[in-house]
Amino acid sequence: MRIYLDHNATTPMCAEARAAMAAALDVAGNPSSIHAEGRAARAVIDDARGAVAALLGGARDEVVFTSGGTEADVLGVVGLALAARAAGRPPRVVVSPVEHPAVAGAARGLAGLGFAVDAARVDGDGALDLADLATRAAGASVIAVGAVNHELGTVHDVAAVAAIARAAGAWLHVDAVQAAGKRPLADLTAVADTVAISAHKLGGPAGVGALWIRAGVDVAAAFPAGHHERERRPGTENLVGIAGLGAAAEAALAAPARWAPAIAAAARLEAGLVALGARIHGAGAPRAGTTVNAAFDGARGEAIVIALDLAGVACSTGAACTSGSVRPSPVIRALGLPPARAAEAVRFSTGPTTTAAEVDRVLALLPDVVARVRAAAQRRAGAGGAAGGADHGPASS
Amino acid sequence: MRIYLDHNATTPMCAEARAAMAAALDVAGNPSSIHAEGRAARAVIDDARGAVAALLGGARDEVVFTSGGTEADVLGVVGLALAARAAGRPPRVVVSPVEHPAVAGAARGLAGLGFAVDAARVDGDGALDLADLATRAAGASVIAVGAVNHELGTVHDVAAVAAIARAAGAWLHVDAVQAAGKRPLADLTAVADTVAISAHKLGGPAGVGALWIRAGVDVAAAFPAGHHERERRPGTENLVGIAGLGAAAEAALAAPARWAPAIAAAARLEAGLVALGARIHGAGAPRAGTTVNAAFDGARGEAIVIALDLAGVACSTGAACTSGSVRPSPVIRALGLPPARAAEAVRFSTGPTTTAAEVDRVLALLPDVVARVRAAAQRRAGAGGAAGGADHGPASS
Repeated sequence: MRIYLDHNATTPMCAEARAAMAAALDVAGNPSSIHAEGRAARAVIDDARGAVAALLGGARDEVVFTSGGTEADVLGVVGLALAARAAGRPPRVVVSPVEHPAVAGAARGLAGLGFAVDAARVDGDGALDLADLATRAAGASVIAVGAVNHELGTVHDVAAVAAIARAAGAWLHVDAVQAAGKRPLADLTAVADTVAISAHKLGGPAGVGALWIRAGVDVAAAFPAGHHERERRPGTENLVGIAGLGAAAEAALAAPARWAPAIAAAARLEAGLVALGARIHGAGAPRAGTTVNAAFDGARGEAIVIALDLAGVACSTGAACTSGSVRPSPVIRALGLPPARAAEAVRFSTGPTTTAAEVDRVLALLPDVVARVRAAAQRRAGAGGAAGGADHGPASS
Repeated sequence: MRIYLDHNATTPMCAEARAAMAAALDVAGNPSSIHAEGRAARAVIDDARGAVAALLGGARDEVVFTSGGTEADVLGVVGLALAARAAGRPPRVVVSPVEHPAVAGAARGLAGLGFAVDAARVDGDGALDLADLATRAAGASVIAVGAVNHELGTVHDVAAVAAIARAAGAWLHVDAVQAAGKRPLADLTAVADTVAISAHKLGGPAGVGALWIRAGVDVAAAFPAGHHERERRPGTENLVGIAGLGAAAEAALAAPARWAPAIAAAARLEAGLVALGARIHGAGAPRAGTTVNAAFDGARGEAIVIALDLAGVACSTGAACTSGSVRPSPVIRALGLPPARAAEAVRFSTGPTTTAAEVDRVLALLPDVVARVRAAAQRRAGAGGAAGGADHGPASS
């Protein structure tokens, strides 16, 4: 009986997505072929595109399927930036320091292509300093922010960011990967120029995503390697995955309250964690409600994640995309915490199936887990002190 | 009762791939997560990586999963070229004029990044002029060719190309998308630096592929947007698709004669087409044996494809990736044919399930189809002449 509290990393597929994918296994045509088999495959793609467009509150022609949220973010940020530069706009991009590696990596890649990349300030809860953003936005051609933070669950005020972008004459990319399926997206597509989503965060499969591109905005693919997706994304479409994304999008639109149990479970978990003495990162900022980023002083997050895994609970220290890294999460670092404090972060993210009983079980396990992790850290700190080793500070430093 | 002769566009999934994908629908973890669910997902990826490495005759660590053959080709060609330029090698790339849009597009993209891109000559059958290639290879850092041509079925002498690349000090990328599953790949990985394959050409799903990268060769991803696939390809892996690719690769390796019926059927078809008076493009060059590129004088290929589709037969005018284009295939143009002749090409590509009876049925349909297409063209030419329209030449010019 595992308890899965890592829905931000990936959430199990919904029944609708699984059924659509099973059916798509039988569709044997290339969507680019003009014969009957090709047209049947094209129809699957078109249906999914309609469902994704509806979820986004956009038009079908504005939806480009990608190999996932990362590619959608890269295509949006890099595609907008290259288009801006080609149009004579300044090669300057502004992001936030708490963005997902997809957006942060796209920005780093742009820096390698000669773009100036700037990061607006956030406060100790991860909330954007909008005045600072407005200052930095001057002379920028692209601003890129997440709608819901993947580690903190915090929500940027995208409407305010969009107003800043408009005033600066900059395009706005929104990473809605953690928002899709959980919150309405139409308020994002109403003000942004590109919006990225990922199937496996909303009940579809991993390895497929979509970028919404406002009609009239050009984000030409970097490499002209095929005519697929209206020249914007080369390669034969991931038919089975796209069928899954379409079904998940349709299911999400049909059941807007699907994530309500996740929000209730997260609130219960957060109250219990606070009662156990945990810090909650981002608690002072508006949050989407399914992510609780907690920390216990003197207990490394990775040790807690491992101990909870052994006890049957799945959670994480931060983005799965950076797990395995020995460095503390850059998102948590951006809150102004020293490295050892940042390394204490544990991300719990609930899902539609999370129950109060599961939450209570985790809360019952935690005191012993935290005590053991703290004790081990103190033993290591003592041993390190005895051995004279000073190259690694104690976890609680 | 449809007859599907477009296996080069996509070939139906094998039972093994379908079963593996159905099973993977139940795997609910992010392969990058360190907990039990993540490790279970990672195991699926690792198993598939082993199977793909075995098919390629390479090591697991040399295999990077991509979103398909196009991305694998782009990652190989562009990744090698950018790495070469970063290492101070000349920014010069040589391809052939009969390459798939994935390789041709990657080369065009490199031209946009300041690379000199040259195309070696081919003869009237699409065979590479190796002396010409050797001349152009001087001062190049990357050479990219296909192992089996997607439109002609012709086979480049990759060992000879590799010797030229070695003599020039250039890296060699091989597009093995149409070779994988049909021919051994170990002779390619023995001499190339990168080799691209696509799942949906060998019995797996569309939207997933792999790039084999020789150990020690660096083709860093253009955008540092995640640590996945050893920093070489960002984004959470397409778990279901990769499971399908792995199973298809394993099935291909276990049944090397799986495509033998396709070769027999294509030979029967070609003999029949010749008897009907068709030209066969590429017939003078070594060919892989499952592709027959035929043409009937005075009959546009697209019209034949549409007429055959109505009669229950799926084939194509060329690469599905460029279908819908009004221009004749650049591959066929490269054979030295005038546009109207090139526009007569029809590609028949057989598969493991193609039968002699299916071939005979197509051969029985063709005389009437060709006669009707020719008659319609003559009527249009006559009408055009009567109307004085001269901006479009007759199809048989």
